[in-house]
Amino acid sequence: MRWWGWGSEGHEGGLPQAAEAFLVHELELDPRRPLPARVDLEDVTLSHGAPDELMKPLADVVGNANVRADRLTRVAHAAGKSYPNLVRMRSGDASEAPGAVVYPGSHAEVDSILALCARTGTAVIPFGGGTSVVGGVDPVRGAFANAISLDLGRMNRVLGVDERSLTATLSPGMTGPETETALGRRGLTLGHFPQSFEFATIGGFVATRSAGQASTGYGRIDELLLGLRCATPAGELVSKPLPASAAGPDLRELLVGSEGTLGVITEATLSVRRSPMSRRYEAWSFPGFEAGTEAFRSLEQGGAAPDVARLSDEEETRMSLALAASRGGRRAALTRRAGSAYLTMRGHEGGCIAIVGWEGEAADVARRRGLSARLLRRTGGISLGQGPGRSWARGRYAGPYLRDDLLDRGVMVETLETATEWSNVRSLHRSIALALREALAGRGTRPLVMCHISHLYPSGASLYFTFLARQETGAEIEQWRAAKGAATDAIVAAGGTVTHHHAVGRDHAPWMRAEVGDLGIELLRAAKERLDPRGVMNPGKLLPAGG
Amino acid sequence: MRWWGWGSEGHEGGLPQAAEAFLVHELELDPRRPLPARVDLEDVTLSHGAPDELMKPLADVVGNANVRADRLTRVAHAAGKSYPNLVRMRSGDASEAPGAVVYPGSHAEVDSILALCARTGTAVIPFGGGTSVVGGVDPVRGAFANAISLDLGRMNRVLGVDERSLTATLSPGMTGPETETALGRRGLTLGHFPQSFEFATIGGFVATRSAGQASTGYGRIDELLLGLRCATPAGELVSKPLPASAAGPDLRELLVGSEGTLGVITEATLSVRRSPMSRRYEAWSFPGFEAGTEAFRSLEQGGAAPDVARLSDEEETRMSLALAASRGGRRAALTRRAGSAYLTMRGHEGGCIAIVGWEGEAADVARRRGLSARLLRRTGGISLGQGPGRSWARGRYAGPYLRDDLLDRGVMVETLETATEWSNVRSLHRSIALALREALAGRGTRPLVMCHISHLYPSGASLYFTFLARQETGAEIEQWRAAKGAATDAIVAAGGTVTHHHAVGRDHAPWMRAEVGDLGIELLRAAKERLDPRGVMNPGKLLPAGG
Repeated sequence: MRWWGWGSEGHEGGLPQAAEAFLVHELELDPRRPLPARVDLEDVTLSHGAPDELMKPLADVVGNANVRADRLTRVAHAAGKSYPNLVRMRSGDASEAPGAVVYPGSHAEVDSILALCARTGTAVIPFGGGTSVVGGVDPVRGAFANAISLDLGRMNRVLGVDERSLTATLSPGMTGPETETALGRRGLTLGHFPQSFEFATIGGFVATRSAGQASTGYGRIDELLLGLRCATPAGELVSKPLPASAAGPDLRELLVGSEGTLGVITEATLSVRRSPMSRRYEAWSFPGFEAGTEAFRSLEQGGAAPDVARLSDEEETRMSLALAASRGGRRAALTRRAGSAYLTMRGHEGGCIAIVGWEGEAADVARRRGLSARLLRRTGGISLGQGPGRSWARGRYAGPYLRDDLLDRGVMVETLETATEWSNVRSLHRSIALALREALAGRGTRPLVMCHISHLYPSGASLYFTFLARQETGAEIEQWRAAKGAATDAIVAAGGTVTHHHAVGRDHAPWMRAEVGDLGIELLRAAKERLDPRGVMNPGKLLPAGG
Repeated sequence: MRWWGWGSEGHEGGLPQAAEAFLVHELELDPRRPLPARVDLEDVTLSHGAPDELMKPLADVVGNANVRADRLTRVAHAAGKSYPNLVRMRSGDASEAPGAVVYPGSHAEVDSILALCARTGTAVIPFGGGTSVVGGVDPVRGAFANAISLDLGRMNRVLGVDERSLTATLSPGMTGPETETALGRRGLTLGHFPQSFEFATIGGFVATRSAGQASTGYGRIDELLLGLRCATPAGELVSKPLPASAAGPDLRELLVGSEGTLGVITEATLSVRRSPMSRRYEAWSFPGFEAGTEAFRSLEQGGAAPDVARLSDEEETRMSLALAASRGGRRAALTRRAGSAYLTMRGHEGGCIAIVGWEGEAADVARRRGLSARLLRRTGGISLGQGPGRSWARGRYAGPYLRDDLLDRGVMVETLETATEWSNVRSLHRSIALALREALAGRGTRPLVMCHISHLYPSGASLYFTFLARQETGAEIEQWRAAKGAATDAIVAAGGTVTHHHAVGRDHAPWMRAEVGDLGIELLRAAKERLDPRGVMNPGKLLPAGG
């Protein structure tokens, strides 16, 4: 992974010229202004490395080859992939870089490293794919002189598959593609496809309570997780992989979402499914976001929810169509024009587009698709066919690459997400959009604020916002903080959750007290004090400062 | 509720004579032996009542009328409905009775009572329907001089319904029927029907992590619960009713199943559904338990699970048929004989019977029934029609009444339940059955040991055992302890959970360390110390003694 952005070296940028023109116009970019330069690796500012008296015992546990303190390794672990992370890294600031990066090979090695770090007062930052967009892997030292990143990349094996129970026990360092490849060989899938899929890991999914693009169908990671094994500074914690139990509080749910602050997940047993033989993604049009929301609600509550369900609001739809219009030839343009005329005639001009998808056995997909389509039509939807659906599927992991292209052009781009009851979706959507527009326009940087519903639940849905604005050169972080703060305050005030699947990390920690209350913070702290009495596990994350 | 058994006074017993003959033969009962007498209320041994210096401040909080210390009230709260509870109560031993029973009317009153009890060192036993079958409401004083039962019966209102989000916020003291009646008026249902449905409460469901007979379809209570409000000795704890969140560990899951040891649930927001317009229950026959288990697995993993799914093993099937044969007239007998001949011809003699049921809109039930039936036929099932299904539905809450009839006849009857992966169902089933048979036969009381699969999950299923034996007069508890201990040891050794939906209470507490490990116990204890520092909340439950 590139230390300054997304993807591996050599991946080409891909912002089409017409899209650039659209953004220049929308964001009032000045094409003549100088673009921010990206600092070379050699010029990055690094903090001091780990002292020899730490390097030596670390190497005693994992071997010399598995403790690294070279510049590239340290810089590559100095941050995750949040917007502030990228701004900082591009400017050459890796002053938070870990003193060393340790690559354990087993539960026992993780256990020994944690004991060593607790003994020596060394902060430990568990590191999976490093894809956190909320500062979750930032190597905050806290009160300690040294910090190490614990990269789980070597622990990437399938530990067991039970084809009868449809479960798989996986090592935490397996990435999305490694998992799907290994399971795919047996005709199985985990079905967990967040936008970070290409790099994110099993341990990271579980530790951040993640959801994927098809989680409406397959279930969130907390619904797929059956059991896990953790190493903590206080010892081993095991939650047995049971289908269900009434044996008291569910301690597994205390570890899911613990973001490395309690310990390190070393094994996870998850429900898997048979690989889908068939996949069908379609686009549907609705007269507006409210109509589409009601259609999605009726799908979900009518037991006819597709596996993938995304509904763009008017602004996201407008942006998508503008970008799509910049691609394709004359014939595509004509088809689009004809389609657009038809939608106008049907009262869908300026409307919203949804992507819906089904996966499974062919007959099952056909049956379920029929069920959904009947309901979508009844609630005012118009099918736009599989073309745009396939196009969405092709670009489903493209977002973070596009972000690099935008940053290259001096454009701030950030996403945030929440969830709420169906009866509150409209009001929450408006509050957040308004807060973002006011916060950014108030700074003189007129934004594009777009949103889509990304996951459906019987009682509500998630809202996923993307916002863009011209970067304030020299005040990038302040600008971001103003927008992010305004949006999160609006979320709290309007009854949403501060995060639906990005997790808490560093960026949402200040709002955790509003999320779980004073006594909730006390409970989290009680768990932490019991499992990590010295407080070395991922300092500065999850819990609010001083909380 | 009768203090010595199940149901309200006046409910008639109903063990048919032929069933009695069957049991006399199977359990080697001696029809001439004297039957145990039930003690009259006046002769029940009671502990000392609450002292005036406690009664007075309790009354100051809830009013004089809502603190009771009369004999009947205290005796009725002296135990739940476990087998040892009933043996003890029938013998007139209410020496554990609470000093008083307090009936709070609001969250604020609960809060004040908890503060008062923490201050005075008084044990508090939250009491919903009092239907615990694991000693969960036994008024254990622990280290304290006094104990009160906190009966939530007055807190039985619907606090809010959101018909768009399909959620209801309910008071903890609402019973199953009160809930269904109130929701039914709006065309809604919670869909939670444990065998204790008639008396158990919302707060009890949540506090014990319960599952109902239709939970394969509707979901367990932990899957229905969205948010809750708790009063704890350390203050108020609120978990917002969000459809989903990634904001750290799920603290709601720490309160679900906490069995009154952390605090008192004063509000619960739950997912509800539209009332089913149509219900269809059927019986199916399988050549044996293993074949039936495989059929159920294929249903569940094929996305075709019914809402109710129960598969009796050979022994439970034999007992059910024997009891059924004792009912009905000549015509029914002839029909049965013809049916039985047909099953013999098809190789199902000595086989197993399953009950499957679907609920919802008529068209939906028909569609889903078709889907299930195709799969059941493909996996060797033979439909026995709706007759036995309806008969099961009529008797779905009869078990605990029947238990009273059996106790009247000197028969021990107990149930226990567990869950495990599909690949382990067969082995766990055998281990438990063997342990129970050996433990009881070894004491000279030949048992009937029966089992059914009661709930389906993608990765596994629950096993629900019922066992009967001639009571050992004068050693009823020792006999029970031997059987229960052998079965639970077998569960632990064979990889099941110590409880799938009965909860931990007092009876399973000794196995909690085996269930969650040393560090798991530490975590539970850390939560308890933070929320209930004085340890007044429901002593002796959930956590192992000295743990």
